[in-house]
Amino acid sequence: MSGNSYGKEFVITTFGESHGPGLGVIVDGMIPGVELSEEDVQVQLRRRRPGQSLVCTPRFEADKVEIVSGIFEGKTTGTPIMMLIRNTSERSRDYHDIKDIFRPGHADFTYNSKYGFRDYRGGGRSSGRETAARVAAGAVAMKILEAEKINILAYSLEIAGIRCEKVVPEAIEKNDVRACDPDVAESMKEKIMAAMAEHNSVGGIVECCISNVPAGLGEPVFDKLDAEISKAVMSLGGVKGIEFGSGFAAAKMTGKEHNDQIGPDGFLTNNAGGILGGISSGQDIVFRLAVKPTASIAQAQKTIDKAGKAKECKVIGRHDPCLCPRMVPVVESMCAIVLADMLLRHRARKV
Amino acid sequence: MSGNSYGKEFVITTFGESHGPGLGVIVDGMIPGVELSEEDVQVQLRRRRPGQSLVCTPRFEADKVEIVSGIFEGKTTGTPIMMLIRNTSERSRDYHDIKDIFRPGHADFTYNSKYGFRDYRGGGRSSGRETAARVAAGAVAMKILEAEKINILAYSLEIAGIRCEKVVPEAIEKNDVRACDPDVAESMKEKIMAAMAEHNSVGGIVECCISNVPAGLGEPVFDKLDAEISKAVMSLGGVKGIEFGSGFAAAKMTGKEHNDQIGPDGFLTNNAGGILGGISSGQDIVFRLAVKPTASIAQAQKTIDKAGKAKECKVIGRHDPCLCPRMVPVVESMCAIVLADMLLRHRARKV
Amino acid sequence: MSGNSYGKEFVITTFGESHGPGLGVIVDGMIPGVELSEEDVQVQLRRRRPGQSLVCTPRFEADKVEIVSGIFEGKTTGTPIMMLIRNTSERSRDYHDIKDIFRPGHADFTYNSKYGFRDYRGGGRSSGRETAARVAAGAVAMKILEAEKINILAYSLEIAGIRCEKVVPEAIEKNDVRACDPDVAESMKEKIMAAMAEHNSVGGIVECCISNVPAGLGEPVFDKLDAEISKAVMSLGGVKGIEFGSGFAAAKMTGKEHNDQIGPDGFLTNNAGGILGGISSGQDIVFRLAVKPTASIAQAQKTIDKAGKAKECKVIGRHDPCLCPRMVPVVESMCAIVLADMLLRHRARKV
Amino acid sequence: MSGNSYGKEFVITTFGESHGPGLGVIVDGMIPGVELSEEDVQVQLRRRRPGQSLVCTPRFEADKVEIVSGIFEGKTTGTPIMMLIRNTSERSRDYHDIKDIFRPGHADFTYNSKYGFRDYRGGGRSSGRETAARVAAGAVAMKILEAEKINILAYSLEIAGIRCEKVVPEAIEKNDVRACDPDVAESMKEKIMAAMAEHNSVGGIVECCISNVPAGLGEPVFDKLDAEISKAVMSLGGVKGIEFGSGFAAAKMTGKEHNDQIGPDGFLTNNAGGILGGISSGQDIVFRLAVKPTASIAQAQKTIDKAGKAKECKVIGRHDPCLCPRMVPVVESMCAIVLADMLLRHRARKV
Repeated sequence: MSGNSYGKEFVITTFGESHGPGLGVIVDGMIPGVELSEEDVQVQLRRRRPGQSLVCTPRFEADKVEIVSGIFEGKTTGTPIMMLIRNTSERSRDYHDIKDIFRPGHADFTYNSKYGFRDYRGGGRSSGRETAARVAAGAVAMKILEAEKINILAYSLEIAGIRCEKVVPEAIEKNDVRACDPDVAESMKEKIMAAMAEHNSVGGIVECCISNVPAGLGEPVFDKLDAEISKAVMSLGGVKGIEFGSGFAAAKMTGKEHNDQIGPDGFLTNNAGGILGGISSGQDIVFRLAVKPTASIAQAQKTIDKAGKAKECKVIGRHDPCLCPRMVPVVESMCAIVLADMLLRHRARKV
Repeated sequence: MSGNSYGKEFVITTFGESHGPGLGVIVDGMIPGVELSEEDVQVQLRRRRPGQSLVCTPRFEADKVEIVSGIFEGKTTGTPIMMLIRNTSERSRDYHDIKDIFRPGHADFTYNSKYGFRDYRGGGRSSGRETAARVAAGAVAMKILEAEKINILAYSLEIAGIRCEKVVPEAIEKNDVRACDPDVAESMKEKIMAAMAEHNSVGGIVECCISNVPAGLGEPVFDKLDAEISKAVMSLGGVKGIEFGSGFAAAKMTGKEHNDQIGPDGFLTNNAGGILGGISSGQDIVFRLAVKPTASIAQAQKTIDKAGKAKECKVIGRHDPCLCPRMVPVVESMCAIVLADMLLRHRARKV
Repeated sequence: MSGNSYGKEFVITTFGESHGPGLGVIVDGMIPGVELSEEDVQVQLRRRRPGQSLVCTPRFEADKVEIVSGIFEGKTTGTPIMMLIRNTSERSRDYHDIKDIFRPGHADFTYNSKYGFRDYRGGGRSSGRETAARVAAGAVAMKILEAEKINILAYSLEIAGIRCEKVVPEAIEKNDVRACDPDVAESMKEKIMAAMAEHNSVGGIVECCISNVPAGLGEPVFDKLDAEISKAVMSLGGVKGIEFGSGFAAAKMTGKEHNDQIGPDGFLTNNAGGILGGISSGQDIVFRLAVKPTASIAQAQKTIDKAGKAKECKVIGRHDPCLCPRMVPVVESMCAIVLADMLLRHRARKV
Repeated sequence: MSGNSYGKEFVITTFGESHGPGLGVIVDGMIPGVELSEEDVQVQLRRRRPGQSLVCTPRFEADKVEIVSGIFEGKTTGTPIMMLIRNTSERSRDYHDIKDIFRPGHADFTYNSKYGFRDYRGGGRSSGRETAARVAAGAVAMKILEAEKINILAYSLEIAGIRCEKVVPEAIEKNDVRACDPDVAESMKEKIMAAMAEHNSVGGIVECCISNVPAGLGEPVFDKLDAEISKAVMSLGGVKGIEFGSGFAAAKMTGKEHNDQIGPDGFLTNNAGGILGGISSGQDIVFRLAVKPTASIAQAQKTIDKAGKAKECKVIGRHDPCLCPRMVPVVESMCAIVLADMLLRHRARKV
C-alpha cells in the first residue's frame, strides 16, 4: 500500500506537489451534520502560510482553500470532504540549477532511488508545502475535538539553543517565532535573522500539550496513542525525534522517581506525559519534537549529480531559516487528526 | 479498527495475555517457498526469554513456540503462519493483592478506563510478555531480510546513567546487560543489582543500527520509514522517546553543520540517520530509544483503588529491574517487521 | 496485502490448513464485557462439522474449539480472541495419489501458479475445512447481533433441481439437507444419495434472510452493505453467484414493477432485498447463492500433472456430495461477521 | 472506516456529489514512470458521459478531467494522482419537488436513516454520476493492464428481455445500447425508447469477459479474485446480482458436468469462469451482472415524506431509461482497478 493515507476511522488522503497545479486532501469519515465552512479551514491555513513574517520564506501563497465536496447547506454530510488549494507562486525556474543534482539534507537522492526520477521543482511531493493539506484536514478534525473540549497547544520551546523558561499560552501567536515565553521570543528571532544573514539556518524544539483528553483513547498493542502520535509527527519533514513526558530524561531516573503516583484527586506527577500502556490517562498529553535546521541554505555544499559526479550546491530560493514557527500549526493539525481518529475508533465499541 | 495488527504487506496480528493459556501471532503475507523451522523462531525467543540472567525476572517460561500453520515440508507456503506460545508459569495468585488497585506507572488505570474492567493478572495484554509474539514474528521477517543481507543490531547504549563509549558488536550478546561496550557492562550490571536490592529499578537508552538497507524503502508522506519505525518501537511498553541520527542534538545545530554533504563515494556524514524524506538512503539507519525504569517496584507507592480510595501499592512479583537488556531483541524484531513490510510494499510497484 | 483478514472494526484473521496441526481465527475488535464461552462457539461449529449426517463426508472431526485469549472471567476483554481448532483426522495418505496432479474443479492448479508449490494434503488452505474458522468467528459476531435482535436464517432453497416452495424456519435444522420446505427435503436427500452412488455430486441454491436489521448500515460508495455481503460469501469455495431481492429477474422488469413503493407503514414490496444505495432499509435482507456441485468426485476425469503430461484423476477420499447443507451455517456466519463489522463502523460516527 | 476507498496497493478514494462543485478521485499507488495524459482519461470518460445518445439522459456534462497531481513531464511520479471533474450542469431546481420525499427505488430513505439528512439534489453522493470518478481511476489502472496485455470487454448481453445470441466485440461501441450482437441492438433500443415514452424504464444483463489474465492473481481466503470483483461491481448502483462462469446454472449441474477437465493444451471447458479457489487460472474471466430498471421514472408512485406522511412521487428530471449502455465502461473500469490492485499485490511477494 502506498503511504498517502492516515487514519482508520477519520481517514485523510493527501495529494499534490509544491510546484504542480495544486494540492489538497480528502477527509473520509467525518461525522455528519457538523457545521464547516471554508473560513474554518482558512483560519488554520493562514497560520501555516508562507510569507507571514520576516522569519519565513517570502514565497507568497494565499493558500486559498476550496471545499469541493462533502458539505451541504453549510454542514458536513458524512461523505468525503475534498479540499483543494491551488498553487499560485510556482517559480519553477528557481529550481533549474538543481535539476540534476541532489541537494544535501533533502529527499532528492532518496526520491530518485525510489521512483527512478523526481519532480525537481521544489522537491515535488517532499516539499514542506505538502503540510498545507494536513492543516486543512486538521481543521476538520478540530471540529470533532471542539465538541469534546479537547485543546491542543503547540509552540517553539527552543530555537537555536535559546530555551523558553515558561509557557504563556496567550503569548504564542503574538510573536513571530511562536515561542511560549515572550521574554525570549525576540532573542530567538534575532538568532534566526543572524543565521539567515549568513546563508545558514537553525534548529529547535517544538513542544505540544494536549489538555482535556478523555481517559481511554488509544488502541493497543500497535496503535497505541503515543505510537500513533509519534508516527504522525515523525512523518513531518525535519523532525528527528520525539519524546513524551519525561522522555530521554527517564533513562537516568529510577522507578521510584519516574512512576506517577495516584491520589484520590488524580495523578500526583506526569512523567508519563498523559499516556499509560498506550492509552490516554486523562492527564495532559505532553511531547517534544527535535526539529533539524532547514536543509535549504545558500552556501556552497558538496554533492553529486545523477551521474555520480562531484558538484557544488547552493540552494538559492525562498526558504524558512528555521522550521519551528510554521511547524507549530502543523503539529497541532496532526495531533487533531490522530485524536479525532482515536475518538471515532473508541466510539465504535464503547459500551 | 482495533489495534492488534501491524503492517500492510507483511502483516502481523498478535493475541494473548500474560496469564491466560498462551499468546502468539499470525504472520500473513510471508513470501512462499522460504525455509522456516521452529528452531529459527526459538533462537530469537531465547534471547527475549525471562530468567536468562541475574538481571531479569526469575519467572521461568520456556517460551516454546509451535508453528501451527503456513509451513509445508519445511517451507513457508505463502499462507498465514500462526505461532503459539503456551504460558506455563502463570502464578496468578501473585496478583491477588493488586486486583482492585491501579499500579503506578502501569496501564491498570487506563485499561480500566477504556474497557470498563481489566485482566489484573500480570497486566493481561499490557504485560511485557506480549512482546514474545513480536519476537516470533520478527524471526520470520528476518528470513526476508537475510536474503537482502540487511543486518539489524540493537544494544544497551546507556543504563542508569552509565554510557557506552564504543560499539563492539561481538561483545553485546556476551554480557548480561547487552551493552555494546564490554568495558562498562559490569558497572551497568552492578547498578541494576543495586537498584534491585533497594526495591527500585533503573532506565536506560537502547540504540539500534541497521546496515545494508537498500536505498528506496519507505512510503511517503505518512508511512515514511522513520515514521513507521517510530510507531513500531514507540508501541513497546516503557519506551518514552526516539531519535534518529543527530536526533535532539539537531535542535542546536545549524544547517551547514547538519546537512550530510555527498561525495562521489557517498555521504560524508550521517546526521540524518540513514533516512531522508522518509526514504532509506542506503546509509546505516541509526536511532536511539529512551527506556523508562521498570514500573513494577516493591516499594510502597501511593495509589487508589477502583472506588477512588487512597491505597498503598507495593508490586511484589517477578520483574526485570531494567528493561533494556531484554528489550534489545524486541527492538530488533520490530525493525525486522517494519523493514520486511517496506521491502514487500516497495516491490509491489518497483519497476 | 495478503488476504486472510476481513473487516474494518470487527476484524477476523484466519489461519490453518486442512491437514496441518490445526486451524483457527483471531477476532480483533470485539466489544468488551460480553459473555462468551467455548460452548457458544461449539454450538455453531457442530452445525458445520463433518460427519453429522449421511449426506456429509464421513471424515470425523470433533472440531473442538479452544479460546486461547481475549476472555477473562467468562467475558470478552476487548483484546484479540484467538480460537484454535486442532485437526485430529489427518489422513494425508488419502492424498498421495493426487500429489503431482491438478484435480479438476479444485484450486490445485491455481495455488501452484500463485505460490510455486502447494500443500497437496486435502487442498491445504483451499479446503472447505477452512470455513470452520469463519464459523468460530461468526459465533462471536452473533453475540453483537443478539443484542440488536438481528436474526440471520439461511437454508437450502434448491438442491439438484428440486426447489422449496415455502419457507418453514423451524423445519430447517430438522432435515439433513437443511431445506426450508420439509415437503421436499426427503427428495433432495435422495437425489444427493443417488449422485453419491454414481460417484457424482450435485449443486444447489442457498438463500439467506436477515431480519430486524436497523436502517442505516453500510458504508458507500465501495463498502456498501450488499457489496460487502457479496465479497464475504463469494469468498466461500463453491459459490458461483449471488443475487439480492429480485436479483437476475430484475433484468426483465420495468421500473414501475421493480421500484418498492412506500406507504406510511413501510415499503409495500421488497424487490430491493432490504438494501438501497448500499445501506440497509430496515426491510429483510434477502439474497441467494449459486452453489456448484462438489468438485471432488470419484470418477475418472482428464487432467495433467505438474509437468503438463495428461493424466487421469479420480478423487478418492471423504467428501460431501452436495455443499449446500453444511454451507448454511457458514453463510450465516459470514453474514454475522459483515453485520457486526458494519454495526461497529456505523457506531463510530453515529450522532 | 468510512467506505470511499478501494484497493490495497492500487488504492482509489473518490469524492464528490452529483450537484456540488465537482467530483473526482485520488489514485494512490500507481507505478512511477508511466506515461499518462488527461486525454488518456478523457477517452474513457467520454464513453460514460451523459448525453451521448438518444437512450441516455440529456443532461449535458462535458466531464472534462483535470489531473491536479502525480504527473511530471507527462509521466506518473508514483505519488497520488488527483483527478477533478467539475460539474457544469447543476440544475438543482429539478429536485425541489422531491426535497422532502423519498423517491422509490432510490437511496433517499436509507441516506436519511444513516446520516440524519441528505443532499437531495440528484441523490448527492448516491447518484450514478459518482461513477465518473471510478472511470477516471480505471483509465489509470488500464495503463498497468496494458503492459500485461490484459484485455477487458464488457457489453449489454440482455436488455428488456431481448438477449444477444453472439458476441461480436467490434460491434459493441458501434450501437447505442452497447450490445454484443449487432442483430438485436436495434430491437433493444426500440424497447428502451418505448419504455421511455411510457415514462417507464427497463433492466438488463451486462456481461464482462477479461482475457489474457496471468494465472496466479487473487489473495485467498477473503480477497479472492471473484470476491473482489463481486464487491467492486456490486458497489455500483443498480446491480442486483453477479454470477461467474456457469453461475446460477451450476445449481442444476452435477460435478461431472461442471468440473473443467484439463488437457495438455489447457482447460477443456470454462464453467469456472476463469477463477479457481479465488485465483485466476489463465482462462478468460467471465461474469454477468443483473441490472435493475432505472428507479427514476416520471410515473406517479406511492411514497412518504420525512414526516412519514403518504405522498405521490413522479421523478421528473434527466435520467437514462436503461442503465446498461453507460454501465459498460464503468464495469470495465472497476475490473481494471481490481486487476491492477491484484497485480501489484501479487508482485509484492512474487518470487
